[in-house]
Amino acid sequence: MCRWMAYSGEPAFVDELLFQPCHSLIEQSRHAHEAKTGVNADGFGVGWYGERDVPGVFRDIMPAWSDENLRALAHQVKTRMFLAHVRASTGSATSRVNCHPFSGGRWLFVHNGQIGDFARVRRTLEATIPDHLYAERHGATDSELIFLMMRANGLEDDPIGATRATLSTVLAAMKAGSANAPLKFTACFTDGQTIYACRFSSDDRPPTLYCGRTAKGWLVVSEPIDTEGGRWNAVPPNHWVTVTPEGPYVEPFSVH
Amino acid sequence: MCRWMAYSGEPAFVDELLFQPCHSLIEQSRHAHEAKTGVNADGFGVGWYGERDVPGVFRDIMPAWSDENLRALAHQVKTRMFLAHVRASTGSATSRVNCHPFSGGRWLFVHNGQIGDFARVRRTLEATIPDHLYAERHGATDSELIFLMMRANGLEDDPIGATRATLSTVLAAMKAGSANAPLKFTACFTDGQTIYACRFSSDDRPPTLYCGRTAKGWLVVSEPIDTEGGRWNAVPPNHWVTVTPEGPYVEPFSVH
Amino acid sequence: MCRWMAYSGEPAFVDELLFQPCHSLIEQSRHAHEAKTGVNADGFGVGWYGERDVPGVFRDIMPAWSDENLRALAHQVKTRMFLAHVRASTGSATSRVNCHPFSGGRWLFVHNGQIGDFARVRRTLEATIPDHLYAERHGATDSELIFLMMRANGLEDDPIGATRATLSTVLAAMKAGSANAPLKFTACFTDGQTIYACRFSSDDRPPTLYCGRTAKGWLVVSEPIDTEGGRWNAVPPNHWVTVTPEGPYVEPFSVH
Amino acid sequence: MCRWMAYSGEPAFVDELLFQPCHSLIEQSRHAHEAKTGVNADGFGVGWYGERDVPGVFRDIMPAWSDENLRALAHQVKTRMFLAHVRASTGSATSRVNCHPFSGGRWLFVHNGQIGDFARVRRTLEATIPDHLYAERHGATDSELIFLMMRANGLEDDPIGATRATLSTVLAAMKAGSANAPLKFTACFTDGQTIYACRFSSDDRPPTLYCGRTAKGWLVVSEPIDTEGGRWNAVPPNHWVTVTPEGPYVEPFSVH
Repeated sequence: MCRWMAYSGEPAFVDELLFQPCHSLIEQSRHAHEAKTGVNADGFGVGWYGERDVPGVFRDIMPAWSDENLRALAHQVKTRMFLAHVRASTGSATSRVNCHPFSGGRWLFVHNGQIGDFARVRRTLEATIPDHLYAERHGATDSELIFLMMRANGLEDDPIGATRATLSTVLAAMKAGSANAPLKFTACFTDGQTIYACRFSSDDRPPTLYCGRTAKGWLVVSEPIDTEGGRWNAVPPNHWVTVTPEGPYVEPFSVH
Repeated sequence: MCRWMAYSGEPAFVDELLFQPCHSLIEQSRHAHEAKTGVNADGFGVGWYGERDVPGVFRDIMPAWSDENLRALAHQVKTRMFLAHVRASTGSATSRVNCHPFSGGRWLFVHNGQIGDFARVRRTLEATIPDHLYAERHGATDSELIFLMMRANGLEDDPIGATRATLSTVLAAMKAGSANAPLKFTACFTDGQTIYACRFSSDDRPPTLYCGRTAKGWLVVSEPIDTEGGRWNAVPPNHWVTVTPEGPYVEPFSVH
Repeated sequence: MCRWMAYSGEPAFVDELLFQPCHSLIEQSRHAHEAKTGVNADGFGVGWYGERDVPGVFRDIMPAWSDENLRALAHQVKTRMFLAHVRASTGSATSRVNCHPFSGGRWLFVHNGQIGDFARVRRTLEATIPDHLYAERHGATDSELIFLMMRANGLEDDPIGATRATLSTVLAAMKAGSANAPLKFTACFTDGQTIYACRFSSDDRPPTLYCGRTAKGWLVVSEPIDTEGGRWNAVPPNHWVTVTPEGPYVEPFSVH
Repeated sequence: MCRWMAYSGEPAFVDELLFQPCHSLIEQSRHAHEAKTGVNADGFGVGWYGERDVPGVFRDIMPAWSDENLRALAHQVKTRMFLAHVRASTGSATSRVNCHPFSGGRWLFVHNGQIGDFARVRRTLEATIPDHLYAERHGATDSELIFLMMRANGLEDDPIGATRATLSTVLAAMKAGSANAPLKFTACFTDGQTIYACRFSSDDRPPTLYCGRTAKGWLVVSEPIDTEGGRWNAVPPNHWVTVTPEGPYVEPFSVH
């Protein structure tokens, strides 16, 4: 399992949100409160939007708390939107190619969760990635695979539909492969304009998800990054969040 | 492209063969003579056999010449058989999971070469890996894929047959996928008892391969590790080498 | 602060002691029980004695729990003596040169503790390192500095005297530099024959230290690596341990 | 020895100058033309000025050509001034703390050269670093040490004077320490407003230095980054360059 955060709003320096809050994502890499694994130190990553057509992505294998490059970069980069992630591996190697966010074109993707008994379905699911996306399979995580499937399933045009179709395929493969562990999917993705987040699991105990407001914009996070309780709204299980400039819109989400 | 070496013989310290010769593999990581790429600095690895059922494997992403762990390990480890590799990436990331040697059970595998236009055939070929080996696909190289295919094709019982069947499948996929670049395969693999090496390409210009003798045993290498010319025998294109305690046996090798 | 362990006895595979116990050092890198910092994931290292005049040293910057090279090496290396360390930085960078064990000739050194307000005395103390050892100052830790001072002060011939002289110099510099935080020194070092360990602090709350016995030899550890309580003896504050083949000998230690 | 580049001018994306030219610094990391060492792959770094009081610094240990974080960062960052460096170690470890640029406050520093027989004078020279700068000695390079000495000697107010005083102290220590190898110092440093560069050696064969013009600003480089010969002016040995918005001003430089 992992922890992640996403920001959308007026341009802000990344470190103001990533490092400075009392229970920041960096702090969560050492001591997460609401995660199965309190230590999320198997790599990290941040993706942000600037003047280019594609987002910047910086990922590395050290714990987020000790990487001086991350600290320096977060101090410099001012952006209207970023995603960040600290990783607790569910099996695959601590390697840059296995770190989030994953990117494709303008899209960024971070994930907290797992495909249950992934080894039993990985081959089946990878074979569903179409040729034109296959070269972007760089690592071995279930997360990168889900993102590639979502892109193949029309993420660009219909994020909810693409996510539902992907999770449906995953669940079918898990059933066919006799996977017993649940599918857990608390993820966040964006095209640089709208942030989408989803809290879903096949056992109705999906990893936590919260929305919050800052002076300058909106946050979507695995768990609150500070102790101002009134600021955070828990997203219910099996719900979908769409964050536009007007704020987050939360709606039910299910997979057939 | 890459450079590699293999040793079989009386127990010897790894650094005597890996570091000390005047044109050692470490020197070749900076200035290879017979490689398309003179600099082979996209990671390295060494695998060796000790008292355990499986070989030890140490791989990392720095240039071989600057890694102090490699130097210390090579100074300590005394072994009757080891393989070592310095990597020049043909596209995939500089990541431990993409470094050679690849291992599986008692087997180790190093490779210098490429599947031509790999992106066009990767999906087809990965789908041939059977379920029981699929979890061992950790990276994104053509080399690791070939090794998994060889294992699936019976490497344990018939190394020549498994290699031939694998390369045949690769060539068929390349043809079907309209890959224009050639297949190049100068590889070495062992079960810890017998060393096998193969020099093959679809265009009859396979990367170089040499056999040589030391006071204590036998070497199979990409290019000579010293200037004692009389000591090295070039293996002709499209030939197979089997190294037993009696020395190397060289025979023609073809793929139908 | 950090966690470490040392073994002396009949040859044993490193992973039997480093990985397999239920509260192994690897487990302690995530969840130490008796340390100020439960997470010790700012690098790790292992040093061992084989057939060479000098010990082997393998150090790296990832958390110990996720490094596959460490796992493979510990599985292969069989040794009559090793030291291992997992690091929680007290300020200096997560870098191989700052990871323990530090080595010099036949000696290895691991440390859990700190020179209080190190920045105020570092310059004074580094200037005491003699010329012939100065080139071995590779990093910026107080631990490496203490080890170099101990070597300068006669570690080879009189370990207790060299340690006492070194800590005395450190305490004098701390006093002169108005350092307020205490000196804490729970360290272990060996010439490959005898293991020495010391539990000392200037405030009488030194980090913990234990001795224990295995079927094949002796352990000295920061905290017990299993739950067999009867097997472990806590070393009192301000004591010195000498481990010979006959077992540990514990005696009072003070600094004037 | 190493290769480096510096840019000052209208805001430009870093990769336009760092990656795209035909003989870019990235290309020089593999195949430098005018360096003693053609391969400069012992780490790299880039420092740039944005909206903060201090510059951003990103340094890492992989060869510059294979680091995807560097590629992504250089693609995103648009800046009016940056320095970049690819390293060929003259002895110290490949470690982030030993990579250039070194930074202090608003200053950045890159260096190509060496203090001859550094081991003989390191201790003497480090002892000259004043207390308030000593904590910034993170690594073990002669380059970082020279930069700290320059800062101690008044770099802020008088760059030429501080450099001359520093090199004078270095030369005196080398003489006292019977260092035979020469001092070589082709370095570049900036406070974010003015770029200073110096080409000096004690044997009158200092590493090369060039100035050049782009459509948007000025470059100072170890060797030309493209083949437009008319664009580059070689700086003579023992000269100093000051780059202001009006362009480079070159003047003789000597050390007494």
